[in-house]
Amino acid sequence: MAQQCIVLVFGATGDLAKKKLIPALANLHAKGHLHKGTRILAVSRRPLTDAQYHKELLPIKDKKVWASFLKRVSYHQLDFSNRSDYLALKGRLAKMQAAGIDTSRRVFHLATLPESFPTIIEQLSKECIAYRAPKEGWHRVVFEKPFGHDLSSAHGLNTEITRLFDENQVYRIDHYLGKELVQNLLVLRFTNPLFDRSWNSQYVSHVTIRLYEQVSVEGRGEYYDKAGALRDMVQNHMLQLLALTAMEMPATTDAHDIHYEKVKVLKTVEVDPKQIVLGQYTAGKINRKSVTDYRKEEGVRKGSTTETYAAVKLHVNNRRWHGVPFYLSTGKALKEGYAEITITFKEAACLLFCGADSKLAPNKLTIRIQPHEGVKLQFNIKELLSDFSATPHEMDYHYDAEFRMNTPEAYERLLSDVIKGDRTLFTSWGEVEYSWRITDALRKARVPVQQYPAGSTGPDEAKRFLPD
Amino acid sequence: MAQQCIVLVFGATGDLAKKKLIPALANLHAKGHLHKGTRILAVSRRPLTDAQYHKELLPIKDKKVWASFLKRVSYHQLDFSNRSDYLALKGRLAKMQAAGIDTSRRVFHLATLPESFPTIIEQLSKECIAYRAPKEGWHRVVFEKPFGHDLSSAHGLNTEITRLFDENQVYRIDHYLGKELVQNLLVLRFTNPLFDRSWNSQYVSHVTIRLYEQVSVEGRGEYYDKAGALRDMVQNHMLQLLALTAMEMPATTDAHDIHYEKVKVLKTVEVDPKQIVLGQYTAGKINRKSVTDYRKEEGVRKGSTTETYAAVKLHVNNRRWHGVPFYLSTGKALKEGYAEITITFKEAACLLFCGADSKLAPNKLTIRIQPHEGVKLQFNIKELLSDFSATPHEMDYHYDAEFRMNTPEAYERLLSDVIKGDRTLFTSWGEVEYSWRITDALRKARVPVQQYPAGSTGPDEAKRFLPD
Repeated sequence: MAQQCIVLVFGATGDLAKKKLIPALANLHAKGHLHKGTRILAVSRRPLTDAQYHKELLPIKDKKVWASFLKRVSYHQLDFSNRSDYLALKGRLAKMQAAGIDTSRRVFHLATLPESFPTIIEQLSKECIAYRAPKEGWHRVVFEKPFGHDLSSAHGLNTEITRLFDENQVYRIDHYLGKELVQNLLVLRFTNPLFDRSWNSQYVSHVTIRLYEQVSVEGRGEYYDKAGALRDMVQNHMLQLLALTAMEMPATTDAHDIHYEKVKVLKTVEVDPKQIVLGQYTAGKINRKSVTDYRKEEGVRKGSTTETYAAVKLHVNNRRWHGVPFYLSTGKALKEGYAEITITFKEAACLLFCGADSKLAPNKLTIRIQPHEGVKLQFNIKELLSDFSATPHEMDYHYDAEFRMNTPEAYERLLSDVIKGDRTLFTSWGEVEYSWRITDALRKARVPVQQYPAGSTGPDEAKRFLPD
Repeated sequence: MAQQCIVLVFGATGDLAKKKLIPALANLHAKGHLHKGTRILAVSRRPLTDAQYHKELLPIKDKKVWASFLKRVSYHQLDFSNRSDYLALKGRLAKMQAAGIDTSRRVFHLATLPESFPTIIEQLSKECIAYRAPKEGWHRVVFEKPFGHDLSSAHGLNTEITRLFDENQVYRIDHYLGKELVQNLLVLRFTNPLFDRSWNSQYVSHVTIRLYEQVSVEGRGEYYDKAGALRDMVQNHMLQLLALTAMEMPATTDAHDIHYEKVKVLKTVEVDPKQIVLGQYTAGKINRKSVTDYRKEEGVRKGSTTETYAAVKLHVNNRRWHGVPFYLSTGKALKEGYAEITITFKEAACLLFCGADSKLAPNKLTIRIQPHEGVKLQFNIKELLSDFSATPHEMDYHYDAEFRMNTPEAYERLLSDVIKGDRTLFTSWGEVEYSWRITDALRKARVPVQQYPAGSTGPDEAKRFLPD
């Protein structure tokens, strides 16, 4: 059973809190995964009563369950930079404690703009609401992404944090890591000798990691225009996927050992400034819906050169992967939205059984992350009625098909893990540091952005650049 | 386009000819795969007119196509041991030739009892209807199984045949080889490095070949009681599947090279007389239908000890397979009917991610031959919501699902190949010889038969003997 605790959600009136965090907590409640004494304190600037805040939330289907969930949820008004508001918060916690609710185990979930992180932790620490070594219970701080906007700023933020907290109190979110299939990557890799044996430069031709979205930056223009695809996607999600795909088997499944192996991979990643394609979408149509030109989106700067698409070829220059290119590509406003990792093995020599083009298709293992999480394997078999010529086909496995349920939402798992104190799915400082190092190097190349119409598969140059 | 020829079906009024051969020829006709000049001469003992013979056949659905097919089919009465009947047959062929039908390319398909093979070929040869080196065209003789009933009789029969014909005129049928997926085995093995790389004793734990039937010997008691499962199934189908699974890559896809590699495997097969389980079914129920006790079947000898089930553990004692057991099991009147080959690879060491029983499931590649031809791969993935424990699941590929058609009947392919002169799917003398050598050794062990009720999965002893 989960431990009793208090979850303090900072930025509680924001989209993230209302659309993801609170619903995830509600689902955990509905499933009986929250301790009955656990309370949620929604913290934000606006003056709201509990009832007013409750009304802003999207209820879950079961009315009874929703009503019982709301009994856990209180609202607390707080201006992030106002000291007296923190004192009031401290008073409220003391009052809860006096009312018989243990408040010694505290989750501080910072779902605010990253700019507010230093102020909030500084104040929490100063007023002894959150600190390094509580006598009783524990204090944990969850930081939503992005963690910095380059190596230097991330380093600055981290220095602030480590001044106040131990690394093991720090939970840096990269929501992709909550996905079942990404965790599954380690199990898939290390418990299947048939794959594991070929998982190296001797047998792998190349690796592709694709993370394509149909959504445009609609509504998020201001944030996105300052970030771009390299910072918004490559620095966190994609390099995390790369690390999980390439890493050695850890000594144990402890968070520390897994983090160590991921960092070890990221340390060896080499950037080639000539192997980068960037793009920016223009007006177009996706599923018959018109999409505005990126530069005309609200919040986007005039003549912006921010990339909404990025394709890069990286090398993991270590013993296992030397010479194997890793192609990462990601973009917004694309024709199709999906995320997958494909390991393309070297194909068999065309000695017998090959087709008219005198080539055999390679074996390809694809791990589909979304939608329809699953695994598929491209292999060759004989075409029906043909004489010994090999044709590639796929065998597959889908989670949905077998479990008849959707995979659990990322945030439910992440919040459970924070309450459990399991940092495996969160990124360590080392990972953040080396991911920024790579991302800074990619950005430093200052590759001009190519235009691509919304609803296409990306810039033409990327098509030439990326393997099938 | 297929060559024009004359197909002479001996034993044309038998079940095999009427249920399989003629329908296969009709299908080839329907698909336009027969040359328009090709004729079928149905040869048998009973006095029938063409029309009477036509009536005994099972028409295909399309009446027009069936009518046009029948125009190719004539009946010829012939007593296998009556010389003058052969002279009449020779006359008939001459008459056809005179009528403008080229009869220089002749397929003699012996769908008779094996006892008649020597007489028929002796007579055909003596009267110069079929002979070793025709000046024009070609003469090919197709022998239905079984080819002999032990090594000695097979050897005797083969001596007869090779006295009269070249090996390359001889087509020994093993109908399993006509199945698409069995041919596919070679393509599957040699064009997929991911499987090929692990296809040896270093990585394979064991191989199982299962060929289970729900049908009892009903109606075939007299034949079957003299044969038994070892001769009826193991000697031909199962050892062929073993050879295809274990063989090295041939130099070319020529029949000769493939035959050579299969013989090379069969030569190294070792029989352990202590690793044999035989069974005989007693009364029982299959799909709610009562099945008669084997010993009470018509044609079965009183107190018969003929095996209707056999499970054997063989070793292929060569460089690739030393130490890897091959389990072959086959039986009649069983609970389920299916045929498949499973390669069970050695499992990963239980270092991380293993379940409660401290073991990881092995990777298993299963090639399903019937029903639902396809391929499936057992692999480990993480159980949903679990913490890093691996659970075996399957990804699969089925021919039906993708092609939306049934795989072509074995005989269509076999007959096409005879007309083309492709002996790949037929068994060479070397294969027959070494298969009988193995089968004789298995029979010599004189293992007592265990009883098992019809509709069960076989004798209890076999359950202990065979791996999962």
